[in-house]
Amino acid sequence: MIGVDWGTTSLRAYRLGAGGAVTDRLDRPGGILTVPEGGFPAALREAIGAWLAAGETRILLCGMVGSRQGWVEAPYLRCPAGPEEIAAATVAIPFDGAEIRLVPGLTTEDASGVPDVMRGEETKLIALADRLGAAGAIACMPGTHSKWARLEAGRVATFTTHMTGEAFAAISQNTILARTSIEGPDVPAAFARGVERARQPGGLLHHLFGARTLHLMDRLRQEETRSYLSGLLIGHEIAAAVAETGATQVELVGAEGLASLYAEALALHGVAVRRHDPDLVAAGLHHVARSLRWA
Amino acid sequence: MIGVDWGTTSLRAYRLGAGGAVTDRLDRPGGILTVPEGGFPAALREAIGAWLAAGETRILLCGMVGSRQGWVEAPYLRCPAGPEEIAAATVAIPFDGAEIRLVPGLTTEDASGVPDVMRGEETKLIALADRLGAAGAIACMPGTHSKWARLEAGRVATFTTHMTGEAFAAISQNTILARTSIEGPDVPAAFARGVERARQPGGLLHHLFGARTLHLMDRLRQEETRSYLSGLLIGHEIAAAVAETGATQVELVGAEGLASLYAEALALHGVAVRRHDPDLVAAGLHHVARSLRWA
Repeated sequence: MIGVDWGTTSLRAYRLGAGGAVTDRLDRPGGILTVPEGGFPAALREAIGAWLAAGETRILLCGMVGSRQGWVEAPYLRCPAGPEEIAAATVAIPFDGAEIRLVPGLTTEDASGVPDVMRGEETKLIALADRLGAAGAIACMPGTHSKWARLEAGRVATFTTHMTGEAFAAISQNTILARTSIEGPDVPAAFARGVERARQPGGLLHHLFGARTLHLMDRLRQEETRSYLSGLLIGHEIAAAVAETGATQVELVGAEGLASLYAEALALHGVAVRRHDPDLVAAGLHHVARSLRWA
Repeated sequence: MIGVDWGTTSLRAYRLGAGGAVTDRLDRPGGILTVPEGGFPAALREAIGAWLAAGETRILLCGMVGSRQGWVEAPYLRCPAGPEEIAAATVAIPFDGAEIRLVPGLTTEDASGVPDVMRGEETKLIALADRLGAAGAIACMPGTHSKWARLEAGRVATFTTHMTGEAFAAISQNTILARTSIEGPDVPAAFARGVERARQPGGLLHHLFGARTLHLMDRLRQEETRSYLSGLLIGHEIAAAVAETGATQVELVGAEGLASLYAEALALHGVAVRRHDPDLVAAGLHHVARSLRWA
């Protein structure tokens, strides 16, 4: 079978053999935003045509390709959800002689009844949940929209999104803080100060102004401001997520640079961290395929 | 005497008679950002030359004109500070035959030792403090950088800044929320929902993403998103400030539109509000002048 993680900015495809072993893979820009109206079949053929010609007939797609802006919308599936529920909610697409199915995103509601959504992360999370076994766990996937998920018995029980990465970009580039900060390498000590600041009272909106006043008072240098601000926002995310989940240990899934920042920030919050290889999509697609009796 | 509030984007001048009565005033764009290097004397003469020709010799300036980017830097004065302390810390500038003095901004530190600053607001606050008398009060001045000040015995005892207006602009225009919101009139019910949301757990960064998911789930319309987001940010500011100050009543000083939003949000937080005419600068300058024995 073929598994594809087709997101906003990239397409990653995996040819999966017995037991879910990845026998071939490709990774290209071609995200869904580059696909013209009605162009998804052609774009998919162009990406994995050679594998199809070699006889593959089952293709499982996850990611934003199943969103309203994608090929066909695969409606959000309500948590708790694991491979069985996700497999049952996949959406079939007619495609030449092959069988294509779209993995749905997940939805949940927080304690106040406000909805949350994910699309793409669910596939990684069920792979992680499978590795972790039946015991419950809290997973953190940092990013533009960071996800915190509670995993229970191989399923995503509930989750929360924090708009941390996007808020960091918007605030660091479009407020008075942009004037007193400069691009440059991470400054770990400044990052740690930001994380510690997030644990103090006053609120994020007050803490943001403090990044300016610390600079005015010669207590934060221009080359430290971005790292301080990054620590501040990540620290606020962690403080809120830990308060909500009660996590004392977090399963951290993310690309090296950002995951290292989160690992440090979590440690500063007294949370134990286990890091996981973020390359989980192929395994997650295999779990769904197994539930579809494809594997 | 002449009082001038010379800020980043505007210049407001007052001719003050006996007892601080405003006998003439002018209000023009000409903020300090429009003044070329070394151009402050000429710009001031151009603005108030007629009053100088009529015999005025004492000029008191407040606002960003006393900042590092202004005419001459008037160093921040440490709180608590009232008219006496501020008068004693004014900075004199040679100016033809006249006596010019610059009102300093104020600085304080929050409970965690992080500095805060204001410049311009101190002049309004001492006028407000004078009106309120000796009893303590909590004042809120909403804006790009909202100020919350504790007033005691006619002085500014301490204060806190929240980067609310600027964060709202940066986030509403430069994140995924910009895509699902449209400009339009305020929607009071959506604003109130945002304020209520800020009282729920989860943290601001999670609440921001909720503005997107509510729209995705058809529970927040495009024309409501800006008001919801405004309520969310103002609500977070108020929640943090009320937690910090313990305020049960707030003296609210701001321009009509924004002050009305804050009044509503404060009421939703169960805080009593008294609104004050925001046109306080002339009175504040008069109080400083009195302490200078100019009036």
